[in-house]
Amino acid sequence: MRQISYKPIGIIHTPFKEIEGVPIQPSAGKGIKGHVVINEEYVDGLFDLDGFSHIYLLYHFHLSKSYELKVKPYLDTQLRGVFSTRVPKRPNPIGLSVVKLNKIELNTLDIENVDIIDGTPLLDIKPYVEEMNEADQLRIGWLSDYIPEMKTKRSDKRFK
Amino acid sequence: MRQISYKPIGIIHTPFKEIEGVPIQPSAGKGIKGHVVINEEYVDGLFDLDGFSHIYLLYHFHLSKSYELKVKPYLDTQLRGVFSTRVPKRPNPIGLSVVKLNKIELNTLDIENVDIIDGTPLLDIKPYVEEMNEADQLRIGWLSDYIPEMKTKRSDKRFK
Repeated sequence: MRQISYKPIGIIHTPFKEIEGVPIQPSAGKGIKGHVVINEEYVDGLFDLDGFSHIYLLYHFHLSKSYELKVKPYLDTQLRGVFSTRVPKRPNPIGLSVVKLNKIELNTLDIENVDIIDGTPLLDIKPYVEEMNEADQLRIGWLSDYIPEMKTKRSDKRFK
Repeated sequence: MRQISYKPIGIIHTPFKEIEGVPIQPSAGKGIKGHVVINEEYVDGLFDLDGFSHIYLLYHFHLSKSYELKVKPYLDTQLRGVFSTRVPKRPNPIGLSVVKLNKIELNTLDIENVDIIDGTPLLDIKPYVEEMNEADQLRIGWLSDYIPEMKTKRSDKRFK
């Protein structure tokens, strides 16, 4: 089957220089701060993002060089199917975290609730629009005005 | 900057054969059913997943061949920074959806609340553990027993 290629859009910087000691979920990284430096060619894509209190970061687990299909997750003593866990060693080592977005200045995002190792290549940013445990006082920026439509509206040909 | 390569782990099948008319969010796809066929080499990774009522699907927007940094999203009439939207045309066209997991049989997952186009290559599956708008009656499988630890526990060297 064909390969899919992506290119990092930036780098995530955090206090965690080693794999050991990294919080295993954003909820365990509460209050821990980091920042994301976006490559300058993508800065215009950050427009409007500051209206959101929380964002998804999608990133590449760059230290993950192999995987097993059954793994013993941090929280358990039994082997579990890799897709029922969040372990970094997975067939496609893509990470997903919801972080608090404190500030954007030029191409730098100040973030909080960080469970990511320093130097991680960033692949994508998406607004976080739902309520979740660690996301109190959620703001959803310009989408606030469109909550009813979000339940029903369908796409047109715009992004074909 | 270096390229990152992934390989699809399966294919997502849905009633949506064309871009037009695809729900723009899982909340707008409520009740719509689809199924995911996982490549047989990864089946052991699905173990334990059936304990979760909702899962994240990460997938490749395979019809997305280009992007712009400012886009007019479906819900708005103004140009917005691409990273403050969920539009499929993005620098790295990775899609993210929370879907309801109804059943797993061998390498087929029956899913619901689908906002994905038919034939989409799947990259990863992760358990969905937080509460969100369209995720009533959440179950979190084996993680149910570990909620207190999830807030504090940190990683060790296991996945180095």
